[in-house]
Amino acid sequence: MTHQPEQQDSVGIVTPQTLHFDQPLALSCGRSLPEHDIVFETYGELNAARSNAILICHALSGHHHAAGRHHPDERKPGWWDSCIGPGKPIDTNVFFVLSINNIGGCHGSTGPTSTNPETGKPWGPDFPPLRCRDWVESQRLMMAHFGIEQWAAIIGGSLGGMQAMRWALEYPDAMRHCVVIASAMKLSAQNIAFNEIARNAICSDPNFHQGRYLEHDTLPRQGLALARMIGHVTYLSDDGMKEKFGRDLKAGDLKLGSQGPVEFQVESYLRHQGSRFAESFDANTYLLMTKALDYYDLAREYDDDPVAAFSHAKCRFMVMSFTSDWRFAPDRSREIVDALVAAGKSVSYAEIEANHGHDAFLIPIPRYMAVFNAYMKRVAEGL
Amino acid sequence: MTHQPEQQDSVGIVTPQTLHFDQPLALSCGRSLPEHDIVFETYGELNAARSNAILICHALSGHHHAAGRHHPDERKPGWWDSCIGPGKPIDTNVFFVLSINNIGGCHGSTGPTSTNPETGKPWGPDFPPLRCRDWVESQRLMMAHFGIEQWAAIIGGSLGGMQAMRWALEYPDAMRHCVVIASAMKLSAQNIAFNEIARNAICSDPNFHQGRYLEHDTLPRQGLALARMIGHVTYLSDDGMKEKFGRDLKAGDLKLGSQGPVEFQVESYLRHQGSRFAESFDANTYLLMTKALDYYDLAREYDDDPVAAFSHAKCRFMVMSFTSDWRFAPDRSREIVDALVAAGKSVSYAEIEANHGHDAFLIPIPRYMAVFNAYMKRVAEGL
Repeated sequence: MTHQPEQQDSVGIVTPQTLHFDQPLALSCGRSLPEHDIVFETYGELNAARSNAILICHALSGHHHAAGRHHPDERKPGWWDSCIGPGKPIDTNVFFVLSINNIGGCHGSTGPTSTNPETGKPWGPDFPPLRCRDWVESQRLMMAHFGIEQWAAIIGGSLGGMQAMRWALEYPDAMRHCVVIASAMKLSAQNIAFNEIARNAICSDPNFHQGRYLEHDTLPRQGLALARMIGHVTYLSDDGMKEKFGRDLKAGDLKLGSQGPVEFQVESYLRHQGSRFAESFDANTYLLMTKALDYYDLAREYDDDPVAAFSHAKCRFMVMSFTSDWRFAPDRSREIVDALVAAGKSVSYAEIEANHGHDAFLIPIPRYMAVFNAYMKRVAEGL
Repeated sequence: MTHQPEQQDSVGIVTPQTLHFDQPLALSCGRSLPEHDIVFETYGELNAARSNAILICHALSGHHHAAGRHHPDERKPGWWDSCIGPGKPIDTNVFFVLSINNIGGCHGSTGPTSTNPETGKPWGPDFPPLRCRDWVESQRLMMAHFGIEQWAAIIGGSLGGMQAMRWALEYPDAMRHCVVIASAMKLSAQNIAFNEIARNAICSDPNFHQGRYLEHDTLPRQGLALARMIGHVTYLSDDGMKEKFGRDLKAGDLKLGSQGPVEFQVESYLRHQGSRFAESFDANTYLLMTKALDYYDLAREYDDDPVAAFSHAKCRFMVMSFTSDWRFAPDRSREIVDALVAAGKSVSYAEIEANHGHDAFLIPIPRYMAVFNAYMKRVAEGL
């Protein structure tokens, strides 16, 4: 591993911090978290008026480490380093950026791997089920901690975009802009089906032990690896995979009569992705996050009318989608835009040509960067 | 289960038959099957000139039972009853139809669950790996048995279409028509990825025992169920699933604060499909069939030039695809058509509007039936 020279457009070395909240957090399931920790990172400086704050909401397998590096030799920077930094769309010369690990997560905030104060054991499967709005409530506590009265923008991709939209409905005065990338107002039956298969893979792993694998000093690695492999394929596009792997072989030979192991590149790539994920992610968190995704239905409590739902919002919206994203297809984004227009809201929309599938929102595609950058300039003008 | 009244357009009650082949069958892997059985069904009558024979090639999880019922109370007719019968596209008043279970299968033909004569135990994972051309060779033995010199047509969907195309290249004089439905000249990286995940699910089931589960008196049910669930989702379209399930709930309530189990219809449907399949299909067959799919590459031995490959064919071609099929997308069929046109072959092509995904080829969609019917009338004219 070589030392990474510090890039001019990088936020550089960052250090995660943790806040402890003593007061119980009421959850939508009716239970409450007696106390909880939030691990977070910040980039840029909060201005005197506290008007330049941006909240980053992470997706299914995301966390607080969105930009920069924890130490100079860290192999990869934070997951959204393409978009956060000096001169990047979320410009840390202009904005104060807060990125947190959501409760229920497994990267430092209170979640299923944390100790249940009532039992002294890991929460595991007893951790309360969460809905997207619970994350909004927890993020509000962070907002109060920093003394922020209104976010300049709340920004998220995928499940992160769902949180940003939920904020816009629940706390219309708390934000000026909502940036929703590669997201949807609710999952399709196909989305739910893939999540259910992933959950089945985890729960049928003999090391799952009804979610009490930590007490059994083991991990449901194979189930979690399978879940990740399924997820991974659905986040890529057919064309993108063709470009990346084609039908190239890892080893062996497809010729007639050839013997021995034959393996396509894509097979070993997927297995590698799966097993790496299985070592670094918590299975109960994966179950909890996919259920929150499945249950999310923006307009449910507005008689299934997204126009009625969005009529509560007061902020401006930017919606972006990617042509080859079939997990959160452009049609889903257009539904958001149509509802916002019908509700008389200000909305910009860009459908970006990209063959990277759902993962495109993480990639610095030139037109994506240009459009994102232009919109964020507008956000900056309002500071 | 109620008695099914015999339909006028049904082939009625059919009885599978079995043929035993004593001579070794040389396989493309270099090994040979010392002896083998083929289970098959026939519908319609072979004419005196033996010129009206049609070979049906089955797909991944298919078998010989393509039409009619084995007994009056059978819940469902054969898998392609929509297309085979009196007055149907493959008209049994006109044609003699042969439908076999391929070697390597698990419905009566010699496969991994059969006894290996050398050990007296089930073949299991020691069954030779198969390529599509091995099925062609085995089907040729059936052709000889019936004294058929030329098939009126060879017809198949998906992996069945791949066999039909392989026939056209290997034995150009053995067929007058080739009908290729929802198929491709080779799998994409995405296709291979889904197959690999399915294989991983099977092999990581603790009851798999390196494929020797029968010797351990068990079955890798959970792995096979997961494999089927993955396959099933990829055979349906997003729109089709939306129409069939939407976000309907099986039980429970998504309202805020509600407790108890909440389940979407699509989840219980998938689990049911998975566990039913796990009881009726052999895991080693699933591994073998998906590997044959992955390895298939029509033009590999023609310097990757499909035009050069198809220049060997002498028959006429009919190619059909379905708009919402994303596993074997219309683009894949258009590649076949383009290559055939460039090779100067006679080819008809129809892209059928359908929201049933890959499974559309099994469904009596009116335009599909009309086009298929019209083409088969042409086949009948040549008898």
